[in-house]
Amino acid sequence: MAIMNGAELLVRSLMASDIEVCFGNPGTSEMHFLAALDQIDGLRSVLCLFEGVATGAADGYARMMGKPAATLTHLGPGLANGLANLHNARRARSPVVNIVGDHATYHRQYDSPLTSDVEAVASTFSDWVRSTSSPSSLASDTADVVLAARTPPGRVASLILPADIAWTASPDAVDIRPNWPAPANVPDERIAEAATVLKGPAKSLLYMTDKALSDRGLNAASRIAQATGADLMTPISNARIERGAGRVAIGRLPYPVEQARAALEPYHHIILVGAAEPVAFFAYPDQPSRLATEGTTCLELASADEDLPEALERLAERVGSDQVLPKHEALERPAAPTGSLASDKIAIAVAHHLPENAIVVDESISTGRHFFPFTKASAPHTWLQIIGGAIGTGLPLAVGAGVACPDRKILSLQADGSAMYTVQALWTQAREGLDVTTVILSNRAYAILQGEMAKVGVADPGPTGRRMMSLDDPPLDWVALAKGMGIGAIATDDAAAFCRALGEGLATPGPFLIEAQL
Amino acid sequence: MAIMNGAELLVRSLMASDIEVCFGNPGTSEMHFLAALDQIDGLRSVLCLFEGVATGAADGYARMMGKPAATLTHLGPGLANGLANLHNARRARSPVVNIVGDHATYHRQYDSPLTSDVEAVASTFSDWVRSTSSPSSLASDTADVVLAARTPPGRVASLILPADIAWTASPDAVDIRPNWPAPANVPDERIAEAATVLKGPAKSLLYMTDKALSDRGLNAASRIAQATGADLMTPISNARIERGAGRVAIGRLPYPVEQARAALEPYHHIILVGAAEPVAFFAYPDQPSRLATEGTTCLELASADEDLPEALERLAERVGSDQVLPKHEALERPAAPTGSLASDKIAIAVAHHLPENAIVVDESISTGRHFFPFTKASAPHTWLQIIGGAIGTGLPLAVGAGVACPDRKILSLQADGSAMYTVQALWTQAREGLDVTTVILSNRAYAILQGEMAKVGVADPGPTGRRMMSLDDPPLDWVALAKGMGIGAIATDDAAAFCRALGEGLATPGPFLIEAQL
Repeated sequence: MAIMNGAELLVRSLMASDIEVCFGNPGTSEMHFLAALDQIDGLRSVLCLFEGVATGAADGYARMMGKPAATLTHLGPGLANGLANLHNARRARSPVVNIVGDHATYHRQYDSPLTSDVEAVASTFSDWVRSTSSPSSLASDTADVVLAARTPPGRVASLILPADIAWTASPDAVDIRPNWPAPANVPDERIAEAATVLKGPAKSLLYMTDKALSDRGLNAASRIAQATGADLMTPISNARIERGAGRVAIGRLPYPVEQARAALEPYHHIILVGAAEPVAFFAYPDQPSRLATEGTTCLELASADEDLPEALERLAERVGSDQVLPKHEALERPAAPTGSLASDKIAIAVAHHLPENAIVVDESISTGRHFFPFTKASAPHTWLQIIGGAIGTGLPLAVGAGVACPDRKILSLQADGSAMYTVQALWTQAREGLDVTTVILSNRAYAILQGEMAKVGVADPGPTGRRMMSLDDPPLDWVALAKGMGIGAIATDDAAAFCRALGEGLATPGPFLIEAQL
Repeated sequence: MAIMNGAELLVRSLMASDIEVCFGNPGTSEMHFLAALDQIDGLRSVLCLFEGVATGAADGYARMMGKPAATLTHLGPGLANGLANLHNARRARSPVVNIVGDHATYHRQYDSPLTSDVEAVASTFSDWVRSTSSPSSLASDTADVVLAARTPPGRVASLILPADIAWTASPDAVDIRPNWPAPANVPDERIAEAATVLKGPAKSLLYMTDKALSDRGLNAASRIAQATGADLMTPISNARIERGAGRVAIGRLPYPVEQARAALEPYHHIILVGAAEPVAFFAYPDQPSRLATEGTTCLELASADEDLPEALERLAERVGSDQVLPKHEALERPAAPTGSLASDKIAIAVAHHLPENAIVVDESISTGRHFFPFTKASAPHTWLQIIGGAIGTGLPLAVGAGVACPDRKILSLQADGSAMYTVQALWTQAREGLDVTTVILSNRAYAILQGEMAKVGVADPGPTGRRMMSLDDPPLDWVALAKGMGIGAIATDDAAAFCRALGEGLATPGPFLIEAQL
């Protein structure tokens, strides 16, 4: 092989470690990386017009593929623009490989205008950070960053590439790690302990997230539930759930603290499967942070980095559910809604039209809080949620899911306020021709905050407070915003028209946007 | 005074420390702050739909007012979204007071989904960080954060406010620091040393930035130049320059390394006035980082935290320029351009129409690299540049300048690629009715990168590389994007039509946008 420069070695090393896609927003220090993409075939490069789109897309890709994409960002401020969605990716336990360009090593001392401490920026929301220090370590550093990302349960790993290492001649041998670690099996004592609790007289809850919400995990959990009388529940937000007809339905913990506490009140035991003990999203005056009733025991069956479906299957066997079949939903399809548009009618229209094998990306926030039950018996589908609470994740997740699964329809249910944070994602959807139908839930407000304000003890905000939670002066025109980024769109406040447009959007390949005016 | 909660105490304390405006994007943990704004009159609250708009607006406000605004952001990811423009604010030496909401102190231990290390996030681009630990320290913490921001030359200071401290009853006494420090006077030895160099036979350059580019600083520098034969120059980018007819014109160091080195070649001495030694923005293969010719001496007259105009005035006296008047530009107004639109014709149209006392916000990047000389004799105006190199600063700077100076016209010269990073700023311009005319320099490319690629040694990028630097598939429709956020707009590729539209935009109060298609 000819002598290559560092950037070419990096690209070849990423490919050798099974990285197939790079979501990027490059700058000057990443020019050799771009050039290398032209020299070497096989790493798909997707341009994003803001770094938060790139990191959110990498999260969506990882959720669907179970393996990392790369991101490419430019120096400290470029990476900083992607941090919020790296926070979400970490909470989703998505593996992500960040390649961050930096100034040439010898240039840093001059403190030129774009200089900052890139390692410090990366460290805020990465599980692993390294700055490549020489051409000779680049191949092993690249293998290591992918290994770090692929270490269970999935991590955010960041490799900083100084520009001079990108352009310096490098050894021509890529490095690969022989095996990425698999999730550990749960020790038998924990299976036994959980089985004892489940077979006892007191009411138990399996509180499950992450890979426990795969078909395998849910099937095993359903058998356990039927054999023992336990209930199943997920946290408020989950990285990915397999749902719909022919699958096990599972309910979510409610978001409001009082409702969450009431939902958990019946249980003496909460068995944690990849989930932490249930706690409130935020603290409120005179409300506890912990949601389980005093005296309830929380017992960990399996932690996030262990093999959750395997643990559930062993537990199902241990509680004697061999003869029990999982309880699957039978297909239900509601009639198309009519009348003026409201939250429930959007959910019904989705249930009416949802195509088989769709991927639903849900950053519906307050409007969509009650969407979930409407689609539990729809055609089988995959549901991805905002999970870390950093809004602005939905449109980028749809980009990543669309790149990962070109043969599946993406339905992006998106709150308007949150959509604005990473609205640039629509352009990448258009450029890549991604098969995404976006529904903007346009209530022209940070509606969740209007609810939260009452809960923190402010019954009636005055005009200043109200104005800071309202987006209606001026109203955002989502048809124009979509057009501005090359996507066709319509707006409607009529349920039947919405349902028709949704059907057309879902039936037509490529990106489309509907502003659902509430 | 009645007992108040922490949020009310914070708002009163900010006001007591002369904070008049808060650019905010609040979340649940900031609800008491919003409520306090309704209880207490006098702190103007400006909603931004993305945190980078808020921090960039605070930078623009500070540049025009010489004092800080507050920003309000939500937890670690919310603050992270504002970091890139805090980087720019630091490089502009703009004082900024960040108020960052955090979870209640007792809630952090539960690691709920939006939990992160807020102090670590703040530390990446702040000069001063503190997390308030009790209601009793809140008043002094607030006085301290403003003091930190107002410490010369102007700093980014971040105060983290846990939600429970915001809602807990607090002492009712605000705290203020008796005096904010003024910039120090330069010691006499440095004045003498610079005078000796200037009066010697070797050619000298006054390399000036920051407050040295005020009327006072430039007038003194012009007298020095005439008395000694020294030349004047600014770095590539500067926070604020006073320009136009009746003022001293000053040229900038060119951006390309070869041109910059050639521009500095004549000088044996570079006298630094608030500026660091000139270095290349980026490193390039086989190009030096330091731009001054080997053997040139760099001599610091005054550092950024010293009184630059005062130092220049003393130096002017020392070199015997008492009888010399500053050399001022006489008003020139070029004829309106015609023909097809090109970069130079945009600059001519600006020079043709620029109203007296306008504020030009310049994130024109590659298209605008040659704009500067065209307006040196236009009606007197103020020019603000992107200075830290983190793109996405122009539209927010225009928001901040517009809020700071409602009686001055803002002309925002904005590259299209960079505009997309913080495009949400247009909505705030519409909501607040800011008097901003935005010109989008629409070349549908990251054109600067196309130039940079050649400089790093890639003569002809292949199709993949080209595609990652091109924004024309699909083209961004800026008229639609502006409409989507409530701003009227037109697009044109004709110079006469552009000039007419610019004249109308500048003559009509309120926001307007022109897509200049290049």
